[in-house]
Amino acid sequence: MKTEFEFINALRAKSKVQSPKSKVKIGIGDDCAVISQDSKTDLVITTDLLVEDIDFRRDWTTPELIGQKALAVSLSDIAAMGAKPIWALVSIAIWHGSFVDEFYQGWFIDAGKFEVKLAGGDISRTSDKIVIDSIVAGEVKKNRAILRSCANVGDLIFVTGSLGGAAAGLNLLQNGVRYDSARMWQRKLISRQLNPFPQLSTSRKLSEQKLATSMIDISDGLSSDLTHICQASDVGARIYADKIPLQKKIQLVENLNPLFSALNGGEDYELLFTVNPKNKKKLEKHFSEVSFIGEIVEQNQGITLIGNGQATPLFAEGFRHF
Amino acid sequence: MKTEFEFINALRAKSKVQSPKSKVKIGIGDDCAVISQDSKTDLVITTDLLVEDIDFRRDWTTPELIGQKALAVSLSDIAAMGAKPIWALVSIAIWHGSFVDEFYQGWFIDAGKFEVKLAGGDISRTSDKIVIDSIVAGEVKKNRAILRSCANVGDLIFVTGSLGGAAAGLNLLQNGVRYDSARMWQRKLISRQLNPFPQLSTSRKLSEQKLATSMIDISDGLSSDLTHICQASDVGARIYADKIPLQKKIQLVENLNPLFSALNGGEDYELLFTVNPKNKKKLEKHFSEVSFIGEIVEQNQGITLIGNGQATPLFAEGFRHF
Repeated sequence: MKTEFEFINALRAKSKVQSPKSKVKIGIGDDCAVISQDSKTDLVITTDLLVEDIDFRRDWTTPELIGQKALAVSLSDIAAMGAKPIWALVSIAIWHGSFVDEFYQGWFIDAGKFEVKLAGGDISRTSDKIVIDSIVAGEVKKNRAILRSCANVGDLIFVTGSLGGAAAGLNLLQNGVRYDSARMWQRKLISRQLNPFPQLSTSRKLSEQKLATSMIDISDGLSSDLTHICQASDVGARIYADKIPLQKKIQLVENLNPLFSALNGGEDYELLFTVNPKNKKKLEKHFSEVSFIGEIVEQNQGITLIGNGQATPLFAEGFRHF
Repeated sequence: MKTEFEFINALRAKSKVQSPKSKVKIGIGDDCAVISQDSKTDLVITTDLLVEDIDFRRDWTTPELIGQKALAVSLSDIAAMGAKPIWALVSIAIWHGSFVDEFYQGWFIDAGKFEVKLAGGDISRTSDKIVIDSIVAGEVKKNRAILRSCANVGDLIFVTGSLGGAAAGLNLLQNGVRYDSARMWQRKLISRQLNPFPQLSTSRKLSEQKLATSMIDISDGLSSDLTHICQASDVGARIYADKIPLQKKIQLVENLNPLFSALNGGEDYELLFTVNPKNKKKLEKHFSEVSFIGEIVEQNQGITLIGNGQATPLFAEGFRHF
């Protein structure tokens, strides 16, 4: 059976054969598709499927939080392109009547906060697991979507916020800790898992100041998402273990390797981006919550993690759907 | 528990409160959302969820045909707006490895035929039922999307093709008839159910000649879809039982009321539209495969079916999701 990435590559090859003269400027293979909209703007669009017991568990969260997360994960893809969200569609297959009302209560909280307009959707019955498809469109200046494929050798690698929190929260949930009865530090970690915050504001600032040469959101995990950038840009990368910003209090979680969680945990929905070294000072002046973690190198040098004075190959060990 | 229509109305009310100044011109409540694209065109977009054992059964069809149908039902929504399809997204939750390859083979057959470009999508595991979300965007001249809400009293009501075939095909499948071992007339009916054909070409002609005042595709069933037009346009309607074009050979299916199937069966994916009476001759000259079935009347006259010299109220008895 094909892996997810083999499957996506096969699909991308097939879709490229189709009508080369098309409004679709970037198809499969980035956080969003990029579509020509008018003379000044491009439309970016993403779709994220959330399946019960794969992507969420009803006994760990609430329908409202699932509504917020469904929108947030797509908003994070919009952020990864340096775009501004505009409108959304939601398709939902449910078996549980009140779920959908509560789901939309949560969804509209974040839609109001991030100024997204619900344009439509579909609803269907299902006898079993709830499935949600979240579709969000955004707008970006013409040819200014920030792609995965434009990192250059010598660029510096940065991340927003801190990493590993969502994985640590998941670990707590898997070990029976629930938000309502959790301690304060545990609640923060669980919230990182259940209620992610899309980095739209940092993304817009990076876009306006033309600082990011490439960008992706950290949904699968730093190791996997850095690999996505390197593969799309035909480059390698070197990152420094001691520079990776770890989520506070993560070391309090038993039997959890903080660095491993930060590298491979996924679902932090922070932004990973590259910057031309000449813009380092400008970046550090205007962005306080970003961390330098490494550099882009030649492709033949591969992707390595520097720690304890040693360079070891970094494999994409983040989340895979199959 | 709310019905589907109560739920959609509540959602529509909620989404209208949001940011009134928006690119979203028509949101929830038509076949597609209509979004301002550029100075000359609008974007129309639709999403259709197909759930295994609700919307399709794997023992009745093939993955290829499911791929074709997933695209076709969305293309039919694009047709209902008088628009031309451009690009699509597909999200799919599967448990079966080879299913998705075969699904896309079918999908690309119709994408090639109707010139739709795959722009992206998502894929997820599911331990149970397959769920597919089909998203298609189309383009239409500025302010020229054909809505449900613009039928006028005195307009004539038309449908394309013939009705009841998809319901008759479903009846055969439910009674154990399978395509491969079926007789020729049965195969035609089963194909109406499993492999619907979106009426894009008729739709474009109607749009170019500005002939349709309102339009919808017949997905839920004539009675329900006519009710959708009447509710959106604040009008009533009178249709004639003997004018409704019945699918050929439908009377050969045992224990099936052909007229009931044509009125309430759904999934025929024909177009139901209204025409100003002054354009009747023009329509009949250029469109051979459309049938006059009735007239739009004042709202207080309700929706009635005329048959055997009697007028009886026509209730929306087509498909409901819950």
